[in-house]
Amino acid sequence: MDLTEDELLTAIRRVLSGAGPEVRIGPGDDAAVLAPLSGEIVVTTDVLVEGVHFDRMLTSARDLGYKAIVVNVSDVAAMAASPRAAVCALTLGGDVDAAWTMELFGGMREAAGEHALWLVGGDLSGGSCGWIAVTVIGEVAAGRAVPRSGARVGDLVVVTGSLGAAAAGLRVTRDGRPASDLDRRLLRAHFRPVARVGEAQVLERHGATAMMDVSDGLTLDLSRLCAASGAGVRLALGEVPVAEGATLDEALGGGDDYELLATLPSADAVETARDELRETFGVPLAEIGVIVEEGLTVSAPDGGERPLRAMGWDHFRA
Amino acid sequence: MDLTEDELLTAIRRVLSGAGPEVRIGPGDDAAVLAPLSGEIVVTTDVLVEGVHFDRMLTSARDLGYKAIVVNVSDVAAMAASPRAAVCALTLGGDVDAAWTMELFGGMREAAGEHALWLVGGDLSGGSCGWIAVTVIGEVAAGRAVPRSGARVGDLVVVTGSLGAAAAGLRVTRDGRPASDLDRRLLRAHFRPVARVGEAQVLERHGATAMMDVSDGLTLDLSRLCAASGAGVRLALGEVPVAEGATLDEALGGGDDYELLATLPSADAVETARDELRETFGVPLAEIGVIVEEGLTVSAPDGGERPLRAMGWDHFRA
Repeated sequence: MDLTEDELLTAIRRVLSGAGPEVRIGPGDDAAVLAPLSGEIVVTTDVLVEGVHFDRMLTSARDLGYKAIVVNVSDVAAMAASPRAAVCALTLGGDVDAAWTMELFGGMREAAGEHALWLVGGDLSGGSCGWIAVTVIGEVAAGRAVPRSGARVGDLVVVTGSLGAAAAGLRVTRDGRPASDLDRRLLRAHFRPVARVGEAQVLERHGATAMMDVSDGLTLDLSRLCAASGAGVRLALGEVPVAEGATLDEALGGGDDYELLATLPSADAVETARDELRETFGVPLAEIGVIVEEGLTVSAPDGGERPLRAMGWDHFRA
Repeated sequence: MDLTEDELLTAIRRVLSGAGPEVRIGPGDDAAVLAPLSGEIVVTTDVLVEGVHFDRMLTSARDLGYKAIVVNVSDVAAMAASPRAAVCALTLGGDVDAAWTMELFGGMREAAGEHALWLVGGDLSGGSCGWIAVTVIGEVAAGRAVPRSGARVGDLVVVTGSLGAAAAGLRVTRDGRPASDLDRRLLRAHFRPVARVGEAQVLERHGATAMMDVSDGLTLDLSRLCAASGAGVRLALGEVPVAEGATLDEALGGGDDYELLATLPSADAVETARDELRETFGVPLAEIGVIVEEGLTVSAPDGGERPLRAMGWDHFRA
């Protein structure tokens, strides 16, 4: 590192300056202080580890900072909540310089600006490699948070947008082949994920009984939703919205899509939610299955039924 | 790791179970949900990195988990706030097993219990070495948070307890020599720091104009308080409360003490705060200097004056 810790912190605070009046005390003190929130308080933390979640040779600092915020905003969104503030615990490998670090915070600030939240503090340290843990504080009206555990038998399983683009983008990155327009869209899906904040609140208003974001792959995340709800699911394989340029395997197991996986209580609810999502956000909503008493199965378009294999990301078995 | 990620998460959730009604949604969902807080919201994050802040050969998992919570509670305390909830982003090195991880969470839960806060969530990932980032959410009555930046010329500088014991404890650990009773007290100061939550609120009530915890060493932290306040200080070297068994250098530069460094507006305020701290907590309060217009100087007991060298912990120059 080409600066002392205090010099770097001063530079970072300059990037983060410009908080609103709801930030009573911002970066640089022992802790940040925010104006009272009227709703229930939502809190989530997600860590990106060098060599596990990112590779500095393949990811720009700006994209990395952006993504570190968005993956947490996505978790807040998945509760039907709105993000308000974030803090960041950051460890920098020895060969990282101040310019890279400034770009990282630039990306965080960009994502924070897009989602109307404030970066209010953090902790910085040296180490053998890079870690970025962001914690986002959000807010939701009392009783309106949607957990993973509320799915009931007969609920319809829906997913926003399409799946697999982020995994396909990672494949494109690793292949290192020249980017077509489609390749560039896939890369963008990987490096610049979108958190579905408004979309989640639409699903909540239409009666979502359970909701989560698809971060570790559809089949693994769906099996978690079912486990939390004490229920099973029948997934209609032909209805899974596979992103253009992605394979079915990438859509089912790739992860990092940050689409919303939810259960809605009726076909009417699916219909009206779908209309509102299309009109307000231009985002499609696919009905991909139904909650059943027990068992996780996939029904293929040809009518065959087989067990749902929970493909996806296990941090200790990958 | 001898368990899958989901198995380990289930085991961790069992350790963390037992939250009160103010935790609306606890560990295991995309985000945790807490009942509304009436005061301003305080948030801080602090990271412990293997090889930088801790050595798994020298620290037990239980002590490490305990400390990971307490260092954050100390930052919340330093704002004169009370901790309410915590989340933890954790990376485990490949050779860590489930038993170690359970002990780590056991230590976190112990510290959380002592400070009446709830562990409501986290994120777990594999990596090349260990990394623990805890974020604590706290609460403070509107307008009552004490920043670092409020010290005014003429304010008296005070510090709670004594300094240097944690650094001396680290020295004892590294020397590996058999522990006397004093050694054991020093080791305890290093491995089981105390966050001064109630003490900070006493200092706030007695008019503290600036406050922070001493985590990186007295001289470095004092120079930061002065920089934030746009002021200087004259430190009375003979008044610095050196812990039994510690050297003056350890008291000035060792860090990890988590005592409170504050400025009070008058000798009367120091007197009454000291009385209350002694009676309520049995904790001494030392008056160690005075805030001046500019310059950081040390006055030795013999009357000599020299520049205050900001010894202490710089994560990129250590």
